[in-house]
Amino acid sequence: MEYISGGVTAPEGFQAIGIAAGIKKQDRKDMAMLFSKVPANAAGTFTTNVVKAAPVVWDRRIVQENKQAQAVVVNSGIANACTGKEGMDYCAQTAQAAGAALGIEPELVLCASTGVIGAQLPIDRICSGVRTMTPLLSDSEEAGTLAAEAIMTTDTRKKETAVRFTLGGKTVTIGGMSKGSGMIHPNMCTMLAFLTTDCAISQEMLQKALSEDIKSTYNMISVDGDTSTNDTCILMANGLAGNEMITAPGEDFDTFCAALNMVNTWLAKHMAADGEGASCLFEVIVEQAESHAQAVTLAKSVVTSNLVKTAIAGHDANWGRILCAMGYSGAEFDPEKVDLFFESANGTLQIISEGVAADYDEGEATHILSAEAVTARICMHAGEETATAWGCDLTHEYISINADYRS
Amino acid sequence: MEYISGGVTAPEGFQAIGIAAGIKKQDRKDMAMLFSKVPANAAGTFTTNVVKAAPVVWDRRIVQENKQAQAVVVNSGIANACTGKEGMDYCAQTAQAAGAALGIEPELVLCASTGVIGAQLPIDRICSGVRTMTPLLSDSEEAGTLAAEAIMTTDTRKKETAVRFTLGGKTVTIGGMSKGSGMIHPNMCTMLAFLTTDCAISQEMLQKALSEDIKSTYNMISVDGDTSTNDTCILMANGLAGNEMITAPGEDFDTFCAALNMVNTWLAKHMAADGEGASCLFEVIVEQAESHAQAVTLAKSVVTSNLVKTAIAGHDANWGRILCAMGYSGAEFDPEKVDLFFESANGTLQIISEGVAADYDEGEATHILSAEAVTARICMHAGEETATAWGCDLTHEYISINADYRS
Repeated sequence: MEYISGGVTAPEGFQAIGIAAGIKKQDRKDMAMLFSKVPANAAGTFTTNVVKAAPVVWDRRIVQENKQAQAVVVNSGIANACTGKEGMDYCAQTAQAAGAALGIEPELVLCASTGVIGAQLPIDRICSGVRTMTPLLSDSEEAGTLAAEAIMTTDTRKKETAVRFTLGGKTVTIGGMSKGSGMIHPNMCTMLAFLTTDCAISQEMLQKALSEDIKSTYNMISVDGDTSTNDTCILMANGLAGNEMITAPGEDFDTFCAALNMVNTWLAKHMAADGEGASCLFEVIVEQAESHAQAVTLAKSVVTSNLVKTAIAGHDANWGRILCAMGYSGAEFDPEKVDLFFESANGTLQIISEGVAADYDEGEATHILSAEAVTARICMHAGEETATAWGCDLTHEYISINADYRS
Repeated sequence: MEYISGGVTAPEGFQAIGIAAGIKKQDRKDMAMLFSKVPANAAGTFTTNVVKAAPVVWDRRIVQENKQAQAVVVNSGIANACTGKEGMDYCAQTAQAAGAALGIEPELVLCASTGVIGAQLPIDRICSGVRTMTPLLSDSEEAGTLAAEAIMTTDTRKKETAVRFTLGGKTVTIGGMSKGSGMIHPNMCTMLAFLTTDCAISQEMLQKALSEDIKSTYNMISVDGDTSTNDTCILMANGLAGNEMITAPGEDFDTFCAALNMVNTWLAKHMAADGEGASCLFEVIVEQAESHAQAVTLAKSVVTSNLVKTAIAGHDANWGRILCAMGYSGAEFDPEKVDLFFESANGTLQIISEGVAADYDEGEATHILSAEAVTARICMHAGEETATAWGCDLTHEYISINADYRS
């Protein structure tokens, strides 16, 4: 099981493309399409926000009722959220245009959008973009990269990866691309992830694998604590690898889940590291916790604390803020058992020992916290459970992106 | 019932003082003392953080067990949090020093600290500060102001107020001072509030009044979502107004609660407006909600959203972020019924009508959002309950205060 180059087009039978369709200003890429040569089992997880964007409503119905999809049309620039009935109609029109161009049922077309909330899609440009993209679809690595670039908003780097493994002698691949925090006309951090695989796996097991895996990957990242109206993760499996269909738990399913976790972990970490204004990836590991739920609650509370994140931005070993964020997380624990270590490529240093300051050197701590990826490892001495969360530091650039966008 | 000038020394029989005792650098005021001529019934509310500072543990025991207090010793600069047994010993030593200097039992002395976490108090300076302050105690308005200044950290303005009213022909006064977000060596936003009254009221009713009132005042403000280890609100009632003792619910109790609410609302709003780096007070009113709990949840979610707060900093009517923050709050509601208005000294403007953009002018919205105090009024059209939350915008200065403090 290993990472390979490429993204959504790495698995057998998946094509992609990304273009500039005139939704963003300045001729930047803003539309992508994904296509499977055959209908694929489709699983999805969506935002828990009460306010759901139109494409979220559209996709959720398809995944839950039809359980199959063959194409995904994505646009960046406008989120198609808080757009009422008109927004829903535009999803249907997009699916219809894609269905006609691709020669498939509109019910096999998923939609996703990211960008400003409240504005209506320029539906003519969307439909003409769909028609432009269809003949350009390709299974090349480059085409996958174009798609990964087209879904970016304020992301500074494209995010795509793939993992290859064998199941019963057959080569199976999972590919993925995602976008993290960003906006054009500033809006919210919208997370979109699109995963493809040629694995033969029933829709039920596919959804089970995805629903379980997001708990330890996408749901463990935070850029600013704001849950988008558009968060969407789609996983399509077209079965072209030719492995024996996975229809129940077992060794094959476990292998598939392990590979899926590699893809999702990679994408999640890279989204966190490329959070708005981020200068570093901030990883929080809570170990020896009493329960997994406790570990998750503590790790997420630390990784989302504004005060912890500004301290990380300042390379400041301000450990009191970490203990404080653990304290208000809602989890019960004994502060006097807590050890804390800071780790990075620059070294490892114990900062807290049994709830009070360890005898550490501030200069060394600052050196460790000056790396591009920084880990806070928190040992609870209360059990055997572990959880890891990923985020980023909170910088002046975050404020600039989100407040001063008119300049 | 009216606001009057002054603060903690406005009620009969309360003295105060503030001095520079050498805890902060540069000879800035860092210790305050409050003293009641007679033992006062004492009520308190404290941080819900699992990690509690030593003075929180000390005060909570006194309020819950002894229910009386006569003096409060406060220091800024060091929070005495995460300081283990040594930190608890220092509370006892502070109380002992104050008891000896004032000629009262140490068990009648409350302690409070705010500042950096994890550092130990310079206990010799604290004790000598107590001895210096005792002969300087005064019931003058100026002495109250000195105390209000001495508890500040990165606060830019002192916060004190008082309200006067009559109960059965007797003049009764409630005074108060508080500090909001700040640090010396950067740490967390610690909220401290000290309230004094000459009202005759049983400890049971005093605690009842305080516990109820903080729900709609201090617990409705947020600067950065980080709940401190040191949050403390103390209310002392010495009975010297001579009114008939309040021992049960009724008209007198309601009058007292209304006055207490005036003091606490004033202090809470001023703490929010003076949040770290804040350029404006941000008020969120949720009205016509189904339940009070729903209104509270929605108002707090909007006022704490980083993305909403950066939009306010940029005077940007980015209403999608407000609807989004309502959506992930955990409260159930119908987004398609929501109306939103922005209000300030510069005018009123409807931004959302039934969940979608109203036909408003962006320039006018920016003008309204450029005031020093800005209100988002959200109408749910679902019931009759209202809640108000206060916060501030999220600015570059917040990052500078909390990340770049070494420069």
